[in-house]
Amino acid sequence: MSKLWGGRFSKKTNPLVEEFTRSIQFDKKLAWYDCMGSLIHLNILKRAGGLLTSKEYAKLKAGLEEILNLTKKPSFGANESFKDFEDIHSYIQDLLEKKVGKVALKLHTSRSRNDQVVFDTKYYCFRNIPNTLDLIKKFIGELNILVKNNKNMFIPGYTHLQHAMPISLGYYFEAYIAMLTRDKLRLNNIWQEKLDLRMGAGAFAGTSIASSKYKVFNFYKELFSDYNPLKEWPYNSIDTVSDRDFVIEILSALAITGMHLSRLAEDLILWSTKEFDFIDIDEAFCTGSSLMPQKKNPDVLELIRGNTGKLYGNLMSVLVMMKGLPLAYNRDMQLDKEPLFNSFEIIQSELKILAELLPNIKFKKESIEKQLDDECLYATDMADYLVQKGVAFKDAHTIIGKLISYKLKSKKDIKTMTEEELNKFHPLLNYRVMKKIIDPETSVKSKKSVKRR
Amino acid sequence: MSKLWGGRFSKKTNPLVEEFTRSIQFDKKLAWYDCMGSLIHLNILKRAGGLLTSKEYAKLKAGLEEILNLTKKPSFGANESFKDFEDIHSYIQDLLEKKVGKVALKLHTSRSRNDQVVFDTKYYCFRNIPNTLDLIKKFIGELNILVKNNKNMFIPGYTHLQHAMPISLGYYFEAYIAMLTRDKLRLNNIWQEKLDLRMGAGAFAGTSIASSKYKVFNFYKELFSDYNPLKEWPYNSIDTVSDRDFVIEILSALAITGMHLSRLAEDLILWSTKEFDFIDIDEAFCTGSSLMPQKKNPDVLELIRGNTGKLYGNLMSVLVMMKGLPLAYNRDMQLDKEPLFNSFEIIQSELKILAELLPNIKFKKESIEKQLDDECLYATDMADYLVQKGVAFKDAHTIIGKLISYKLKSKKDIKTMTEEELNKFHPLLNYRVMKKIIDPETSVKSKKSVKRR
Amino acid sequence: MSKLWGGRFSKKTNPLVEEFTRSIQFDKKLAWYDCMGSLIHLNILKRAGGLLTSKEYAKLKAGLEEILNLTKKPSFGANESFKDFEDIHSYIQDLLEKKVGKVALKLHTSRSRNDQVVFDTKYYCFRNIPNTLDLIKKFIGELNILVKNNKNMFIPGYTHLQHAMPISLGYYFEAYIAMLTRDKLRLNNIWQEKLDLRMGAGAFAGTSIASSKYKVFNFYKELFSDYNPLKEWPYNSIDTVSDRDFVIEILSALAITGMHLSRLAEDLILWSTKEFDFIDIDEAFCTGSSLMPQKKNPDVLELIRGNTGKLYGNLMSVLVMMKGLPLAYNRDMQLDKEPLFNSFEIIQSELKILAELLPNIKFKKESIEKQLDDECLYATDMADYLVQKGVAFKDAHTIIGKLISYKLKSKKDIKTMTEEELNKFHPLLNYRVMKKIIDPETSVKSKKSVKRR
Amino acid sequence: MSKLWGGRFSKKTNPLVEEFTRSIQFDKKLAWYDCMGSLIHLNILKRAGGLLTSKEYAKLKAGLEEILNLTKKPSFGANESFKDFEDIHSYIQDLLEKKVGKVALKLHTSRSRNDQVVFDTKYYCFRNIPNTLDLIKKFIGELNILVKNNKNMFIPGYTHLQHAMPISLGYYFEAYIAMLTRDKLRLNNIWQEKLDLRMGAGAFAGTSIASSKYKVFNFYKELFSDYNPLKEWPYNSIDTVSDRDFVIEILSALAITGMHLSRLAEDLILWSTKEFDFIDIDEAFCTGSSLMPQKKNPDVLELIRGNTGKLYGNLMSVLVMMKGLPLAYNRDMQLDKEPLFNSFEIIQSELKILAELLPNIKFKKESIEKQLDDECLYATDMADYLVQKGVAFKDAHTIIGKLISYKLKSKKDIKTMTEEELNKFHPLLNYRVMKKIIDPETSVKSKKSVKRR
Repeated sequence: MSKLWGGRFSKKTNPLVEEFTRSIQFDKKLAWYDCMGSLIHLNILKRAGGLLTSKEYAKLKAGLEEILNLTKKPSFGANESFKDFEDIHSYIQDLLEKKVGKVALKLHTSRSRNDQVVFDTKYYCFRNIPNTLDLIKKFIGELNILVKNNKNMFIPGYTHLQHAMPISLGYYFEAYIAMLTRDKLRLNNIWQEKLDLRMGAGAFAGTSIASSKYKVFNFYKELFSDYNPLKEWPYNSIDTVSDRDFVIEILSALAITGMHLSRLAEDLILWSTKEFDFIDIDEAFCTGSSLMPQKKNPDVLELIRGNTGKLYGNLMSVLVMMKGLPLAYNRDMQLDKEPLFNSFEIIQSELKILAELLPNIKFKKESIEKQLDDECLYATDMADYLVQKGVAFKDAHTIIGKLISYKLKSKKDIKTMTEEELNKFHPLLNYRVMKKIIDPETSVKSKKSVKRR
Repeated sequence: MSKLWGGRFSKKTNPLVEEFTRSIQFDKKLAWYDCMGSLIHLNILKRAGGLLTSKEYAKLKAGLEEILNLTKKPSFGANESFKDFEDIHSYIQDLLEKKVGKVALKLHTSRSRNDQVVFDTKYYCFRNIPNTLDLIKKFIGELNILVKNNKNMFIPGYTHLQHAMPISLGYYFEAYIAMLTRDKLRLNNIWQEKLDLRMGAGAFAGTSIASSKYKVFNFYKELFSDYNPLKEWPYNSIDTVSDRDFVIEILSALAITGMHLSRLAEDLILWSTKEFDFIDIDEAFCTGSSLMPQKKNPDVLELIRGNTGKLYGNLMSVLVMMKGLPLAYNRDMQLDKEPLFNSFEIIQSELKILAELLPNIKFKKESIEKQLDDECLYATDMADYLVQKGVAFKDAHTIIGKLISYKLKSKKDIKTMTEEELNKFHPLLNYRVMKKIIDPETSVKSKKSVKRR
Repeated sequence: MSKLWGGRFSKKTNPLVEEFTRSIQFDKKLAWYDCMGSLIHLNILKRAGGLLTSKEYAKLKAGLEEILNLTKKPSFGANESFKDFEDIHSYIQDLLEKKVGKVALKLHTSRSRNDQVVFDTKYYCFRNIPNTLDLIKKFIGELNILVKNNKNMFIPGYTHLQHAMPISLGYYFEAYIAMLTRDKLRLNNIWQEKLDLRMGAGAFAGTSIASSKYKVFNFYKELFSDYNPLKEWPYNSIDTVSDRDFVIEILSALAITGMHLSRLAEDLILWSTKEFDFIDIDEAFCTGSSLMPQKKNPDVLELIRGNTGKLYGNLMSVLVMMKGLPLAYNRDMQLDKEPLFNSFEIIQSELKILAELLPNIKFKKESIEKQLDDECLYATDMADYLVQKGVAFKDAHTIIGKLISYKLKSKKDIKTMTEEELNKFHPLLNYRVMKKIIDPETSVKSKKSVKRR
Repeated sequence: MSKLWGGRFSKKTNPLVEEFTRSIQFDKKLAWYDCMGSLIHLNILKRAGGLLTSKEYAKLKAGLEEILNLTKKPSFGANESFKDFEDIHSYIQDLLEKKVGKVALKLHTSRSRNDQVVFDTKYYCFRNIPNTLDLIKKFIGELNILVKNNKNMFIPGYTHLQHAMPISLGYYFEAYIAMLTRDKLRLNNIWQEKLDLRMGAGAFAGTSIASSKYKVFNFYKELFSDYNPLKEWPYNSIDTVSDRDFVIEILSALAITGMHLSRLAEDLILWSTKEFDFIDIDEAFCTGSSLMPQKKNPDVLELIRGNTGKLYGNLMSVLVMMKGLPLAYNRDMQLDKEPLFNSFEIIQSELKILAELLPNIKFKKESIEKQLDDECLYATDMADYLVQKGVAFKDAHTIIGKLISYKLKSKKDIKTMTEEELNKFHPLLNYRVMKKIIDPETSVKSKKSVKRR
């Protein structure tokens, strides 16, 4: 396959080397971005003056635009020889040569794959972050509906997975909105501040074209929807080709989002057990067992939980790869793409599927209410009552602690205890008060420090 | 040791459990933050009305302020019994009880360690990020001096650790300024947007004190230097106690900074080898060998490189810990602190030491210039010359590739080749042109796409 | 503080460097091992001939033995100046000089810290692995009791956390014996094959003492309990000082054990929820809440789950540290010790505490039996019955699947269905058969492919 | 696509779920292993008696053998519908149904995908470890040649990347043989002890076929080359389907091997710099630059270094996935395969390419000898000389340290110093002695503690 280099080499590359260094199997996803970058670069060459005739420019532009269109077709890259190219850049160069002939050899003037690949990858991120943000927003939309519909549906709240205090199911889902709102902010920050698409770094030392030529990208504004990501000449060209911070930051952000989704998955898996029995996940979102006929398994949620491993592993793999690399570009950096693409794809598919799965969950009121009967859930409210009557908090905590202990040992309901029994713990305790306290709605409404929608 | 719980327990905690669950050995670093938090909480209790008399308030305030002062002394925590407490919160509560008596039992009203610990940790971050930013700025300051002083000092630039093109040493250091500037921005973003210090989450469901009481923190403005980190009531109290995103984001940011410093360390280690011989690190920053008398080792730089492992490991450990945790608080989360503190300390010490080591490096001009004589460094400039004369870039690349190949095989300097020899590669090549091209200053200055200071 | 190097240095080490490179705060754990290594080295020096007079030998031996005894005392290292030494090797050398005078200067002949530290660390592992193995064995002992006592106690078995088939509780605990038996084998393999304690590597190139002198360690046999870990001269001295495989293998083995214990912890946390209500963990092994009086939390189990993060992080940190290090010793390697010690300590404390916690769990038969009533648990047995009667398995699977679906929709017990209802699914199904199948003991006993104790 | 489950489901699976849970894109690599497993299972069914007629057995056997042959062809899985199946097990079942009709429905009797997939994966490892071991052996073979050919070729040895002492190049390569020999032992241990291929676990609780039927695998001996991996019935069937230790152990072993190769890669990258100039890597194993015509980059070695990231990430991803999973099988575990396959492929390709690259390295004697002239390399030998004359080691170390310091400041060769100059440091030092000491061969040969081949 034709290469972008070779003049000084008198020997053929060893086939094992070709196979080992090849990246087209994953960087093919950059095809569209690469054409876009080349079109921009072509304009710079034109503006530089003296490097291209206007005929050459027109020919190259037409050729590149034709390839740009090809990249959008599913058939792109399906030809036999495709997989034998070193990378997507070589393949597109080869296509261009076939389309426009020798003038194609001029395109790579003042350009290096070092900056080409970082441009393509940043541009890929520039378009994939908004896609991901849209999916987060859509998922938050579904959560919002759950919040609204379940304001007055109460569930036991847990700490240490033990009954703690009642909360509203709506408020539970609001917690996930809080997490996903941070996720949105995090990705959006990267999108706005870290994806500075710049040209002119060359291999790392810059090019012979004046920086002013790298300034105006107005001519390509139309290509970039509402926000033009292109910046002026490179801030520091050595850094431009050596930097993969944006990849790591994105992988870190996606790992955090994946961790959030793993927590939601865990809760839903627990709630769908026979023992909790809080929810029923729609059959269309479950799978069965090849051996056990009764099985309806929450596989989607399990895979979301398990994917955390992949997301963390992807982050770790790029961090490790970058450790201790001397400046500037090193070939190791080629290995940033697979983990990056994979993490984007995982999170996007998780968000998509959860946005459909969640509205298809049925909450089983009866089982939930059985758990809300657990009087332990109201112990803090009992202590609070004593505090409001003047008992010091730590004393109230001890008093109610002893009452709970008595309740458990005697297997009696507090609500059924006699005045005498209650008074042994504190004279302020009595049936009427207890009955009022032991109620999920009362409990939730008494938590006045928080705002609810 | 006195505990913050126990009423419902009739048995003593097993001593192995006490040892296993104890966190005071590391959360002692939160002592000052914990007192501050308690002072704020005390004010809220006062404002809530009906919970404290003004005498009680005054007594608790005086007690807490006394302890706050104690925490600043090196002797804090040096007493024998200190290490037997469960955590710093229990210890401070115990101190307070000893100082002010029974009224101390009222302090924990409407508060839980779940929100107390997240407040303390966030507050710790709120103060440690600016410290770290100051150290980054100081280090950038040193880099700026190097940039300025070495604008016209040239060194070989490398890609793949092979001679690529000459660059200025100043511009090399500018690349690190670019990285550290991103690091600054990243940490600053977290500081401004992610450290929302809020009170009122209670265990996770909120408290019985009205949200309005959690609103005005003006009374404590003076405690927070120029930027008041306190926000109103919790956005979502379940999320508040369950969230460790800020820890992970900080660990990720510190890992990236550590990775940058590992790259600088690697370059300097290479440059200080006998083979490169580009630099001499001051003896005060090197260590010797117990066996080999001649050794002067760059241990500081090696440890900076090696610390990347710790920084990555710390990040991984909190990510793993959070995976799949059900809402809300779980005891696992206690394990966020050691990695967080450790990563802050590593980066702070690395920045401190590099800011002193770097100005104490001597650049060895003679050895560097010997490498700049390598004519291969100017091959791209030769190709560029042909391009400017109308040769297509890929052709120019091949022509110069062949010339380099000939040079290496014949072991001849291009500068000493005859007109005839050069013309075999291209008629435009000649001695005069080559001599002009083969010069580091000419080469660097011809890179007009980049701005230099 | 006195150092093991310095002749060629004319400047004092910068105090920041001393602090940054210091390791005594963690390598103090190697004190005993270091003395042992020195005693062995001293014998080699004696055997080498010409390096020590017998008086010098006796003096050094007495001095070292005295220090060896000191290292066993809790007061060791408590003196003020201790923490200012570079490392434990320098401290012990300094102690020796104080005890025996100038002859101490001869001890470091033909030795380097590079091989000293690897010897000490390997020797530390050599003694800590058996300690860990003993704890595993003790824990397996407790599991064995549970297996024996719960052979005929049945619980629902889970896949995907959904009711799958009944199993015996004893058999459930046997699964953990299987895991821990692998853990034992894994650690034991490392102990036997990977901890080759060898001397004579020097800095990395060997020493001037003949290899034969490094051969016979009979004179120290008594120091090494039943298995003499000492091997002959280094297999390859460059590798000896550069190798940290044994650290990584141990960290990996401990991470796997920690993962196993995290799974047990997770199951027990689930079983101790109000919803499962399968177990009651003894109060002595639980902790409470500072706010909620009723809480009895399984904190020990949560920390065991959370520690997986630390164990994985420790493994990652040494793997990252070793990546791409040039041969031979580099200072980065100093950073292997903290993670190694930490992972040993975590696993040892987890095993210790679980061996006490587990026998203090009460199984709540009533709640468990309620779950065993779930007829879905016997669906596979129903299908098996049809298969034994000649129905193809996939058909039987579908038939029973439909029966289960009907059962769930109609909310009927299979045991209460009429002959007619059952026959709609398959003529072989009838009340008598169903009644026999729906029984945990019958189900478990029918699984004849497995051996039970 | 036809599924292995579905009877109880009345709704169709959501297409997003099908896509999200699908694993055929990677588990297709298990096709051959799956057929083998099915053939063994078929024999067990036959032996169980009463489940299959001999005609049915023959039909199924023929069908499976036909598919087994298909799996070896490159065209396997190339059909359009292939990628729409849930997993390779469903695909093969579907193929079988198409080939042999309804009798295929009997094959899944007493079997679950839970044990099927663990069998297939273990079997995959069982065959891939020997492949990897062969590649390690082949690579060690190449290293052995280098050891033999370079016994008397000397190079500077490094610690901290500083000149330390001369070593022989052969001995340097022996260090890698030491590492790879451990790698071999580690993988071989896993192969022999951890890959217990057992059948009969069913979903996790065992099957209704008697354990004796799972005992004799003689009938399939011929399928397993020299070592029959099949064991009797499952040791513990719950553990069998829940265990992924073998995956983690293999990923850990491959990560360590990758780390070793990254160190070799790093050294060779350094040695191929213009500054070291110790080696020339054959052109066939290098690649060029698209911009810089002179470039001959060691990309293969850089990718080997960079791949450490992937290998560590793969290990981390499975460790994280397994953290805290309740027993027994959970769908998360499906995610073990991609990292496992990927790490095997990385290490196998690295070993293959290094075994060809290494013999194609040319050592550049001239440049190496220039570095051996560095007198600092012999400082330890000088100290050793004084020690042999009775000077205490630490004194000798200081004396030579001062001599080196003088040498560097005065820029004089020790070999050219006058008797008077040398005597200032110690009366035993003189020109004749120094001249003898300053010689790589003398130095290397004086290291008598190590055995060389």
